[in-house]
Amino acid sequence: MQAELINPFIKSTINVLSTMCAINPTPGKPSLKGDKKTWGIVTGIIGLAGPSVMGNMMISFDTDGVLKVVGNLLSEQYTEITQDVIDAVGEITNMITGGAKKDLSEIGMMIEMATPMVMIGSGVEISQLASAPILTVPFSFQEGAFVVEASLSQRK
Amino acid sequence: MQAELINPFIKSTINVLSTMCAINPTPGKPSLKGDKKTWGIVTGIIGLAGPSVMGNMMISFDTDGVLKVVGNLLSEQYTEITQDVIDAVGEITNMITGGAKKDLSEIGMMIEMATPMVMIGSGVEISQLASAPILTVPFSFQEGAFVVEASLSQRK
Repeated sequence: MQAELINPFIKSTINVLSTMCAINPTPGKPSLKGDKKTWGIVTGIIGLAGPSVMGNMMISFDTDGVLKVVGNLLSEQYTEITQDVIDAVGEITNMITGGAKKDLSEIGMMIEMATPMVMIGSGVEISQLASAPILTVPFSFQEGAFVVEASLSQRK
Repeated sequence: MQAELINPFIKSTINVLSTMCAINPTPGKPSLKGDKKTWGIVTGIIGLAGPSVMGNMMISFDTDGVLKVVGNLLSEQYTEITQDVIDAVGEITNMITGGAKKDLSEIGMMIEMATPMVMIGSGVEISQLASAPILTVPFSFQEGAFVVEASLSQRK
């Protein structure tokens, strides 16, 4: 169940970044998230809600990573985190989750997506009131790094 | 549409706090959220996702407010924000949204709820990639204060 859950997000992350941003990130080993803090400086967050499951997906970028990913997406060069960069992280969060949603539906986990949010700040404490663990996958590419985190719990 | 959206959250907030916490908060005037920052020190956040609408709801407490609300909910006295307090804010976020969900469904806005999150820190910057404005309502009671914020956008 847990690999089934995270694999669609890994696949969709690679797909979105390679097709939209010309970046081929290398995923590391998935693990259980061990703290409650944001990993990077810019974190896209999206609520996942279906009739039988609920959760959240987050993608958290370091500064170099987000400037390169968004710069490639928008064909611009960014040297700081502007509102355009923040909005683009929301779009990327949405696109990755949209891709994962399709694969999740094929294994019976139907979800709709909430409005993406983008939070600024590393080490910001965020708890989730989830019965399932949060899975986290580190990604790296030449210019930067990010992590993808996802959790889906059965509704009671 | 915007009053229709926020009224179920105001009603449910008063209902949950009065029945579960023996607190009768007074709502102030709803307005459009003018910045992108968390208002209080502890903020419950929940994604809202339905077939035709999507959004987020947040409830952000000052320190005195959260200690009193959660203390009353759990029949304990808290002097600091413990993990129990944080978890209880997640539950309160869930209960308020659950109440609003019912009223929203009666005006044709069907939503499911994502897993509640609770963030620590006032003035944390959070942007939402929403086409609709975020409505914010201040609440006060004898021992503290909080704000409720909600936004629901039509899916494109």
